[in-house]
Amino acid sequence: MASLLGAQAPLTRVAIFGGTHGNELSGVLLVKHWEEDGAEVQRPGLRVTPFISNPRAVQRGVRYVDCDLNRVFDAARLGQEPPEDRPYEVGRAQEIRRLFGAYDVILDLHNTTSNMGCALILESSQDDLLIQMFRYIQSSLAPTPCFVYLIDHPSLKYATTRSIAKHPVGIEVGPQPQGVLRADILQQMRSMVKHALDFIQFFNEGKEFPACSLEVYQVTGKVDYPRKANGEIAAVIHPSLQDQDWKPLRPGEPTFLTLDGATIPFDGDAPVYPVFVNEAAYYEKGEAFAKTRRVTLTARRLNAAPAGSAP
Amino acid sequence: MASLLGAQAPLTRVAIFGGTHGNELSGVLLVKHWEEDGAEVQRPGLRVTPFISNPRAVQRGVRYVDCDLNRVFDAARLGQEPPEDRPYEVGRAQEIRRLFGAYDVILDLHNTTSNMGCALILESSQDDLLIQMFRYIQSSLAPTPCFVYLIDHPSLKYATTRSIAKHPVGIEVGPQPQGVLRADILQQMRSMVKHALDFIQFFNEGKEFPACSLEVYQVTGKVDYPRKANGEIAAVIHPSLQDQDWKPLRPGEPTFLTLDGATIPFDGDAPVYPVFVNEAAYYEKGEAFAKTRRVTLTARRLNAAPAGSAP
Repeated sequence: MASLLGAQAPLTRVAIFGGTHGNELSGVLLVKHWEEDGAEVQRPGLRVTPFISNPRAVQRGVRYVDCDLNRVFDAARLGQEPPEDRPYEVGRAQEIRRLFGAYDVILDLHNTTSNMGCALILESSQDDLLIQMFRYIQSSLAPTPCFVYLIDHPSLKYATTRSIAKHPVGIEVGPQPQGVLRADILQQMRSMVKHALDFIQFFNEGKEFPACSLEVYQVTGKVDYPRKANGEIAAVIHPSLQDQDWKPLRPGEPTFLTLDGATIPFDGDAPVYPVFVNEAAYYEKGEAFAKTRRVTLTARRLNAAPAGSAP
Repeated sequence: MASLLGAQAPLTRVAIFGGTHGNELSGVLLVKHWEEDGAEVQRPGLRVTPFISNPRAVQRGVRYVDCDLNRVFDAARLGQEPPEDRPYEVGRAQEIRRLFGAYDVILDLHNTTSNMGCALILESSQDDLLIQMFRYIQSSLAPTPCFVYLIDHPSLKYATTRSIAKHPVGIEVGPQPQGVLRADILQQMRSMVKHALDFIQFFNEGKEFPACSLEVYQVTGKVDYPRKANGEIAAVIHPSLQDQDWKPLRPGEPTFLTLDGATIPFDGDAPVYPVFVNEAAYYEKGEAFAKTRRVTLTARRLNAAPAGSAP
């Protein structure tokens, strides 16, 4: 993984997934558009495949049909023999692995109801190529900020749909309600995809990227809503935390607000950087927000790929 | 309906519906809270009943199970004999009519993904009592604006869940994504309910309300998204229209934006006031926004109710 990048072969097979969650519509619309007219996402020497990853969920306008497609790509579930009653998404995951398991890069397009703006999700702190790519995307989007969420964690990392590729890229843009298409969010996602593809093209063409560092927000834990004995929500995100993704939350600062007007403070012993604050899909996962810490990753100089190897 | 209001009996039976749409969570949370502790919504001489109107949809976190509960309260569907395969919501509507058909006021709590702020929905331009109530709520909320959407229209009016009451009140607050609870939206809805109940109490106590006028936005039509031959969305709400509910949209002004970057202008022949701009639940109803015109309604002086009649 951390070998000298210039020794790698060019990245020739790239997929763009939309509709991994069927009600996150920016990616659905873009992928369907590119399936009809792919000129915008084609690059010399690259095979770029736009793909609707959960078509049944897209058709129904829901996140998933039986279970979350973005949580079933672990070895245990992918290895299941196909029983008659296997969940739809498990069968779909097996099919996706068969189709895309040898791909170099998968760009997996997501929306969130959280105020996360343009965000990239990184799965490994050792992936120098993606660290370089994410720095490139950040530079290209500036002055629009673009944050990086690192899900590398011994117990909290989850097996995403894109995790079957050599370099899995999560593109997460919000805030956007489920089932809604906003032009501003659509444009931001589209720009992120463009810059990702440009980077891949530059890499294949032998452009050199100097050693760089990248500030990321690494998950350290999850915080659930206060709940009643029956499991129902007993308090909502406090107004002073709502929409404040990526900003420090310090011990004792307001976190939740009960219906009786009581403020519940953050009970951590050090500041954290919340992300996915009040994401609709995470109510059922017991997650009001994820706690992160800021970490600076570094990537070695990206050597030119052999010029002749880019077709 | 338009008889002298002072001649009316006091309003003694009031219901508060939450969860008419199961993924509009502010009303669900408030009603469940008031079911446990109703002190906040009790008023002298009033019986106030908080009620979850579509519990199965609430449990599943969806708008509805079989069909939209807020569209089945027409005589034809309510009169159906209960067949084995009747839609869940039709059976539920029959039950709701049986329980609440003789109620004076139903406050029906809704959220929208549109940027409508605090909004009240009025079903009849002749309902002097509600015109007075809505003026009272507006005054009490000021300087926070509170708009009134009038759905009285020969063909576009729909039979709401609350329509079985003498005075049906729709309370619609946004923007809030489906499946999300925002503290700010919750507080706005809560204030609107408080002021509505205060008004009813004042009315019952004999307080006099002078003749008044009320500016409302009356529905005149619906505008669908541009669609492809297969029915899929071909353009999104233009950024200059997004979040601009209640503001004039003039002929020729940008309305939609295609993925090819083309702007589709508004093709009306007079300005309209769009509402429910980009409401998630209306994609399936073929409605990108509703067109309204501004109308000023008037209500006669609200005479004191007989003081002795308020228990």
